[in-house]
Amino acid sequence: MLRRTFLKDVAVVTAATSILPDTLIGQKHKLNKISLAFIGVGARGMDTLSLALLRDDVIVTAIGDIDVAEAEKAKQLVKEKQGHEPKLFTKGPYDYRNLLVQTKPDAVIISTPWEWHTIMSVDALENKTAVGCEVAGATSIEECWQLVRAYESTRTPFMILENVCYRRDVMAVLQMVRQNIFGELIHLEGGYQHDLREVKFNNGKQLYGGGVEFGEKGFSEARWRTQHSVYRNGDLYPTHGIGPIHNMLNINRGNRFVRLTSIASKSRGLHEHILNHPNGGKNHPNTDVKFSLGDVVVTSIQTHNGESIILTHDTSLPRPYSLGFRVQGTKGIWMDINKSIHIEGKSPAHKWENADTYLKQYDHPLWQKYGEKASGAGHGGMDFFVLHAFIEALKRKEDMPLDVYDHACWAAITCLSEQSIAEGNAPQSFPDFTNGKWMSRKPIFAMAGENNEWLY
Amino acid sequence: MLRRTFLKDVAVVTAATSILPDTLIGQKHKLNKISLAFIGVGARGMDTLSLALLRDDVIVTAIGDIDVAEAEKAKQLVKEKQGHEPKLFTKGPYDYRNLLVQTKPDAVIISTPWEWHTIMSVDALENKTAVGCEVAGATSIEECWQLVRAYESTRTPFMILENVCYRRDVMAVLQMVRQNIFGELIHLEGGYQHDLREVKFNNGKQLYGGGVEFGEKGFSEARWRTQHSVYRNGDLYPTHGIGPIHNMLNINRGNRFVRLTSIASKSRGLHEHILNHPNGGKNHPNTDVKFSLGDVVVTSIQTHNGESIILTHDTSLPRPYSLGFRVQGTKGIWMDINKSIHIEGKSPAHKWENADTYLKQYDHPLWQKYGEKASGAGHGGMDFFVLHAFIEALKRKEDMPLDVYDHACWAAITCLSEQSIAEGNAPQSFPDFTNGKWMSRKPIFAMAGENNEWLY
Repeated sequence: MLRRTFLKDVAVVTAATSILPDTLIGQKHKLNKISLAFIGVGARGMDTLSLALLRDDVIVTAIGDIDVAEAEKAKQLVKEKQGHEPKLFTKGPYDYRNLLVQTKPDAVIISTPWEWHTIMSVDALENKTAVGCEVAGATSIEECWQLVRAYESTRTPFMILENVCYRRDVMAVLQMVRQNIFGELIHLEGGYQHDLREVKFNNGKQLYGGGVEFGEKGFSEARWRTQHSVYRNGDLYPTHGIGPIHNMLNINRGNRFVRLTSIASKSRGLHEHILNHPNGGKNHPNTDVKFSLGDVVVTSIQTHNGESIILTHDTSLPRPYSLGFRVQGTKGIWMDINKSIHIEGKSPAHKWENADTYLKQYDHPLWQKYGEKASGAGHGGMDFFVLHAFIEALKRKEDMPLDVYDHACWAAITCLSEQSIAEGNAPQSFPDFTNGKWMSRKPIFAMAGENNEWLY
Repeated sequence: MLRRTFLKDVAVVTAATSILPDTLIGQKHKLNKISLAFIGVGARGMDTLSLALLRDDVIVTAIGDIDVAEAEKAKQLVKEKQGHEPKLFTKGPYDYRNLLVQTKPDAVIISTPWEWHTIMSVDALENKTAVGCEVAGATSIEECWQLVRAYESTRTPFMILENVCYRRDVMAVLQMVRQNIFGELIHLEGGYQHDLREVKFNNGKQLYGGGVEFGEKGFSEARWRTQHSVYRNGDLYPTHGIGPIHNMLNINRGNRFVRLTSIASKSRGLHEHILNHPNGGKNHPNTDVKFSLGDVVVTSIQTHNGESIILTHDTSLPRPYSLGFRVQGTKGIWMDINKSIHIEGKSPAHKWENADTYLKQYDHPLWQKYGEKASGAGHGGMDFFVLHAFIEALKRKEDMPLDVYDHACWAAITCLSEQSIAEGNAPQSFPDFTNGKWMSRKPIFAMAGENNEWLY
């Protein structure tokens, strides 16, 4: 209510109407340029901004951030690359609303703390500004519905910027799945297994580590992300694991998540980290913080089509990075942890083969086309693809390859897993956010377009 | 009731009383020789018999099997190695009872189809014959209690012959756990991931494969094991995964399993195998069999001390063998699938190291002592250790290192996982089979004995 009133009020004050109905919506011709705003230009937003500035089909028109210094840095970068100054909105957390109604960008990239994603996305959609939103889990099912409803009432494009869906090996395996190399899929695994202790804590100055501060004394992600580990026990960050699996299983497109259970280990890693850090120790006040988040949280998801999925969240212990993918069907299995594959009739019986040969053979056409262009981009190139898909789909006025329904059922994993753990691992049902449309929707992610062209 | 009556009757008929109170129980001196019987001398029983015949502290006195040819083979082997003929009991499935009361062995090795383990073990215990029983899951919680009660009323030794507990890498990692190399344990994984399609089906003549027959037309394990895949959906074979984890977590000795949930994928692998086999095909009658067992079943177990455990059962799809062990604590992680380890402060930050160096450094004293002796034994030598432990504990009249309580809570996983799946992944509580004794019992598995000697 507040938001709607606000938007109406601002709209009256500025006497402006959305330009989107005339540009993005209802016209057949392709757009050549997208006016793009950024809300949130911390470490992650800045990465995406840099990528956007490499494109000639994007004009960055506005920047919103509560941190003036960060916003200024972003402005300088835009000026350098595009020769003009974007308008800044830095007057507190709600100034992004002025950004939306005053600058009316075609699209906005949202890279803010998790708890702001939904409200900002909904405001943007209601302003007819298309949204490319960074990934996060939801705190409630209602939050997911809010976004679905905002999209359905405005029909303004929304894309969840899940970059791991575009990882080169993941896309090669997706090709193999689509060409039936694994047979009928049976069991998939993935997760987020990343030692984030130096992300969750720093010295208030540097991005990573150097201290055990968080919250008001922390910097960047430590400022807000760590709070979720203090108060919540569930899979806080499900999308990097579930996104690729979702595409392989055609979730929301002939299949859907039915229910989950989650289990959490005890919570020790973050406390131990504070205790054993040279700038921490037993007298540091943060040793009194009680972290709710179990060090390892494992979620089991049952799909409508009968596949089982295991998702692991493991961010508070010393460990090498691994998303732990496993794709298993009636004809074979791939795992990323041992970089191995077994395909019946091709691999020696009961033996692993190195996956490389297969990953090269089935390299996704988009990687073949854009691999070189992507090579400079973040996270091994996949950041290029996710932004590219958003901008290209927008220009073509085509459906977003990872849309609001996909986001909703991924983000729902977080609050459902919290609920399952709180109820002693009790099963929790997924709402059908598509309201039945999953039965008839067809797969579109990373498929060839008209004329068999690979576009995004 | 039937069983007790039977035993009493047979006892009257043979006018014999158990010799065990005079030999195994209530005396302080060590036994030098064990009279050992075998019930079940199929493929597995024969392996164990061969190992037993390498020992000079065992006299094999009797063999029971419903298959006369198998029993005769076993008899010949004993004659060859020990120069005497063991008595045979081959007159139907209950003739083992005559074996027990007529020959009164000190101990018996039971290697029969799963559904016979409990009744045979209970009968043996009530006959004061110590039991070394092959591993299996239970069909009911009551079945587990039956065995616990038989043990508690007779105090006759029972050991579950869980060989993977003695795997060399597993025991090295157990040493590392006990020396706190992983810090406080947080999350453990294991399972049974073994393509058993050629075990579950054969041509009725050979042990493995060559056809798609099972049940009455199958041979060896295919004759009985496959039925469980037809009718049951759960983790049918939990012990190889859970045994080693159990020892690392001191389950029943200061810790216990509290509850589990299980998830099952659809069932496709066995049907596809019949369909695609050169001796199968769409006209083969076994294509009409509906298999209940999900191809992949994953069970999440919560412990009293707050660790999470993931167990995977995956026996019907093409895949390389892997028990999928993962041992993770506050200071590091080991995984067997990639043969890698990471220990904070020792390994390069965020990097895996090859586990070999650690596995050698922490090689278990028992492997150092008996490794050469074990090298000929089955399953990479671990079969030597499990039989060795049973015989040595028996001779010394010491507690069995893997006992009836351990067996009960492992076997319970099978029926609890079936129940969880049947109830849509609902959590199931583990009974406390120790009746509270887990709070005070101390770890004994593969520990040094008196005088700091490593015995078994």
